[in-house]
Amino acid sequence: MEKRKMILDCDTGHDDAIALMLAAKHPDIDLLGVTVVAGNQTLDKTLPNTLHVCQHLGIEVPVYGGMDRPMVRDQVVAADVHGKSGLDGPVFGELTRKAEEKHAVSYLIDTLMASDGDITLVPVGPLTNIAMAMRLEPRIIPKIREIVLMGGAVNLGNTTPSAEFNIFVDPEAAHVVYSSGVKVTMMGLDLTNTALADIHIIERMEAIGNKAGKLFGDIMRFTLRSQAVNGLTAGPVHDVTAVAYLVAPEIYVTKDCHAEIDLSKGPSYGRTVCDINDRFHLPKNVTVGLSIDLDKFWDIVEDTLRRYE
Amino acid sequence: MEKRKMILDCDTGHDDAIALMLAAKHPDIDLLGVTVVAGNQTLDKTLPNTLHVCQHLGIEVPVYGGMDRPMVRDQVVAADVHGKSGLDGPVFGELTRKAEEKHAVSYLIDTLMASDGDITLVPVGPLTNIAMAMRLEPRIIPKIREIVLMGGAVNLGNTTPSAEFNIFVDPEAAHVVYSSGVKVTMMGLDLTNTALADIHIIERMEAIGNKAGKLFGDIMRFTLRSQAVNGLTAGPVHDVTAVAYLVAPEIYVTKDCHAEIDLSKGPSYGRTVCDINDRFHLPKNVTVGLSIDLDKFWDIVEDTLRRYE
Amino acid sequence: MEKRKMILDCDTGHDDAIALMLAAKHPDIDLLGVTVVAGNQTLDKTLPNTLHVCQHLGIEVPVYGGMDRPMVRDQVVAADVHGKSGLDGPVFGELTRKAEEKHAVSYLIDTLMASDGDITLVPVGPLTNIAMAMRLEPRIIPKIREIVLMGGAVNLGNTTPSAEFNIFVDPEAAHVVYSSGVKVTMMGLDLTNTALADIHIIERMEAIGNKAGKLFGDIMRFTLRSQAVNGLTAGPVHDVTAVAYLVAPEIYVTKDCHAEIDLSKGPSYGRTVCDINDRFHLPKNVTVGLSIDLDKFWDIVEDTLRRYE
Amino acid sequence: MEKRKMILDCDTGHDDAIALMLAAKHPDIDLLGVTVVAGNQTLDKTLPNTLHVCQHLGIEVPVYGGMDRPMVRDQVVAADVHGKSGLDGPVFGELTRKAEEKHAVSYLIDTLMASDGDITLVPVGPLTNIAMAMRLEPRIIPKIREIVLMGGAVNLGNTTPSAEFNIFVDPEAAHVVYSSGVKVTMMGLDLTNTALADIHIIERMEAIGNKAGKLFGDIMRFTLRSQAVNGLTAGPVHDVTAVAYLVAPEIYVTKDCHAEIDLSKGPSYGRTVCDINDRFHLPKNVTVGLSIDLDKFWDIVEDTLRRYE
Repeated sequence: MEKRKMILDCDTGHDDAIALMLAAKHPDIDLLGVTVVAGNQTLDKTLPNTLHVCQHLGIEVPVYGGMDRPMVRDQVVAADVHGKSGLDGPVFGELTRKAEEKHAVSYLIDTLMASDGDITLVPVGPLTNIAMAMRLEPRIIPKIREIVLMGGAVNLGNTTPSAEFNIFVDPEAAHVVYSSGVKVTMMGLDLTNTALADIHIIERMEAIGNKAGKLFGDIMRFTLRSQAVNGLTAGPVHDVTAVAYLVAPEIYVTKDCHAEIDLSKGPSYGRTVCDINDRFHLPKNVTVGLSIDLDKFWDIVEDTLRRYE
Repeated sequence: MEKRKMILDCDTGHDDAIALMLAAKHPDIDLLGVTVVAGNQTLDKTLPNTLHVCQHLGIEVPVYGGMDRPMVRDQVVAADVHGKSGLDGPVFGELTRKAEEKHAVSYLIDTLMASDGDITLVPVGPLTNIAMAMRLEPRIIPKIREIVLMGGAVNLGNTTPSAEFNIFVDPEAAHVVYSSGVKVTMMGLDLTNTALADIHIIERMEAIGNKAGKLFGDIMRFTLRSQAVNGLTAGPVHDVTAVAYLVAPEIYVTKDCHAEIDLSKGPSYGRTVCDINDRFHLPKNVTVGLSIDLDKFWDIVEDTLRRYE
Repeated sequence: MEKRKMILDCDTGHDDAIALMLAAKHPDIDLLGVTVVAGNQTLDKTLPNTLHVCQHLGIEVPVYGGMDRPMVRDQVVAADVHGKSGLDGPVFGELTRKAEEKHAVSYLIDTLMASDGDITLVPVGPLTNIAMAMRLEPRIIPKIREIVLMGGAVNLGNTTPSAEFNIFVDPEAAHVVYSSGVKVTMMGLDLTNTALADIHIIERMEAIGNKAGKLFGDIMRFTLRSQAVNGLTAGPVHDVTAVAYLVAPEIYVTKDCHAEIDLSKGPSYGRTVCDINDRFHLPKNVTVGLSIDLDKFWDIVEDTLRRYE
Repeated sequence: MEKRKMILDCDTGHDDAIALMLAAKHPDIDLLGVTVVAGNQTLDKTLPNTLHVCQHLGIEVPVYGGMDRPMVRDQVVAADVHGKSGLDGPVFGELTRKAEEKHAVSYLIDTLMASDGDITLVPVGPLTNIAMAMRLEPRIIPKIREIVLMGGAVNLGNTTPSAEFNIFVDPEAAHVVYSSGVKVTMMGLDLTNTALADIHIIERMEAIGNKAGKLFGDIMRFTLRSQAVNGLTAGPVHDVTAVAYLVAPEIYVTKDCHAEIDLSKGPSYGRTVCDINDRFHLPKNVTVGLSIDLDKFWDIVEDTLRRYE
């Protein structure tokens, strides 16, 4: 089987770090590059966080800094979830690993234009980098094989009652991506909130005994502590489900539907309005992940983490 | 136990008819009057539908015609669900029963102003009558004991992906009611879509052997046929859950939250934005019905229908 | 010539008081009634203000209290322009004149329904009373001969950069009226801001030597003082231009156009979007006053004030 | 006197061509580059149009193609005003002049970053290029000396009753620019609609006897013909007023105010809401051109055109 070429676009972030670990080492994935965006924290934190993970685990993929704020709206970050650094929990050594000189948006454009249309984009943060690239160079649009993203929700949001964080942070960028004509597969909260790492999952990954398993534990134990405030005993690994979809789509239940981003400035600003019951009979532009076989999902995660030294 | 004084505000409508049957005969309810509004169909259909049910079952409560269109927006009806008459299915005799002369809005104002603050309003259609009364005579607001309504949804709507029919038909009226300061208890689709009458429920009610059981059957067999188009084998009795709440609140699981109506003209127009996870720490103005003990619910319905001759 | 039957709907207010003086005594006007609404101040001030003017000048027309808040939005008043009482300046005796028992909205409905379609409505405040009447009893709509209103602006507003006060206070009511199908003639700020009473006009009216001229002076000298804060030496008599239009339309330049109320909640909420250059080729639902022959206008005012004892 | 360094950002277009002629030859202006954007027509027309003007008149400044669509919204063009080519009227020879390889947005970023903060941007089309550059590289923002733009309106728009074309085409980009903190001077329709070239102005420029005067004539005679449809006998040279402001600000009357772009999707979408009467006491982020000494303006245009061979 040919490896699946992908670019990970992330705002590392706890679950982003695990998504990166999965993308960098899964045998069926060819991770071409990592582009970083502001989101969970400001770019001056999400970029070093990404580099730290790469350096710590010896991931040699090039990393590109990208957009440090949304396309149109004012900036929002999620310091309450991811801590002051955006990746509180793990302790890393001094950072020597450097980002590439090129801007993430330029990297996306150049790489896609030079490609044979076989690259999948996996954005797990706000869609600012992708949307800016699409607007700056619309000819990349037919070059994108597919976009598999973490973001949105059919039902309730997590930042407002209506909106999920990644979409809420840059609804205008999300509109550009959702209406671009590219095949979009969306792992929204309805699915990702079920991908929970509890203490058993954490101990299972730690038991691998390598740096990757240890890092998984350091990350998710922090998430567990922040979830405990809300009385929860497990933490979701949202972003990881988007990467896993590339190698095991058969473990997901999905549904095609029309989806639109709410760009009104009312209480539903940033909502992914998914017409999952097809009330409007509009063209189906999005494939929505509804559920996932979690046993197989965690097997994929464990198997991949084991590949780290 | 003292009977619970209530006014039913409806747009009859299939489930409205059953809600009326329950309200008119339950021993713990004192149904003072029925006000009718446009909704499922135009008022020139919902008013006769209501009168037909009263005449057919000998329900002697006064019936008042009300608002024939929404406060601000253009009119929408639900002919696809309730048929051309708004109550397709049952066959009634010639209508001789008359509505009262007084307008429903005037009746609401006069009755509430003359009351001791012990009347509960149960609107199971668009909130136009109630909102108009509140604006015309704001002094009724502290006179209303509680509003228990059928409408809205925490998660998905049924008219648009965002909005439930009753709220979508008159979002501005819903805003007036939700922001009025009155205690509002909302039976939204999250709960009402679980209150399903399948063929067993229908046969059970028909087996009562009286006119009421027969009417229940005629109504719900029509609903069943229209649901069958979507591959479903049961039909929801949305409105009935609002009436049952008055006599058996203990069979409901509810949660208090802040709720706001989306008045933007975007794709979420008419959404009941319920902050069920309390992300905004705003005052909790709505009690939302989350689930219901269906066995006990159907017992209440059956016991009440048996009281008809 | 037959007298023009009209109902004045006002939120007295300085210029409202003068509009009332004109409507009550002009020989070509048959003022059937005065309905009062909240606007420049709360209803508990605008209603007594209206009664004071009637009592002071012996105006015997019936006065009806109406809506004390907007249809949907929260209440706004203009205490900065009209002072604490809403009609600061004149000193009146003790108020013995009473409003009618009937609500203004009921009066409008009953009077219009009983009419031959020959009554013109002249609203010079927020359109709440008129819109509520239209929604409560849509059959009045074809009964209204014309609505000549003070409100809106083709160009700049006076409450926000986009919106004029009367429309801003109740945009949803304005939408109901503007989209009702009734012939609407709109005296907006573009015209009314030119109808300025300076010290010469004030002295001219005072020189009449009767109570009406004196009241004109007391009113406009207050307006002059509040305008002086902004370096102005004259005050507009907005509302008076709507009444004068009924008796002398030939002194106005007008243009028909399509007009729509901005109901978005953005910075243009409450704007009267007048397509005065017909860019959209939509049906022309509004006649907009563009300019007025001021010499003839002031002659009409003076001639009418002279008719008071 | 030191020459004023500027970059012209245009969507040529009739008045754009004249603005370019003025910017390229005025002795007090140092035109560093020309960036082109979609607007009056699609980029595949506005870019060649710009190059044609340069080639025809021997203007040696580098020209950069930029954004071919708005940041977020769907594309709109003005074929009705500028014809099929976007610059109907003049006849040019075969185009041999080439645009630079670099994208306009990259050119803006690189040039501004390398500058001493002494470059003024003069956008006379939609603000897409400028806004994209600001978002891609926010560090250019303090490097921009000033933005003097043609766009918006205090009063009426020309594309909708509320919105002027340049802003309407990309309101989100306009929002980015207006809220950027850069000093923005806006030549809106209130001023630019007074800068009219009638047949006397056209003949005066043609009488210069060189290619530039002839091109002015060919351009404005076309505009005159399209205006004639509306019964007008002169055509506005909107964009030229923005360039002239750089060399002769003293011939303009301006006023500072707070301005905000209406991003609602209602009838005022794309309006430049200018609080010219300071009703909100918000920080004044825009200098609005109110009027211009037209005699001196046309002298500047003529004097500059004479400098062409």
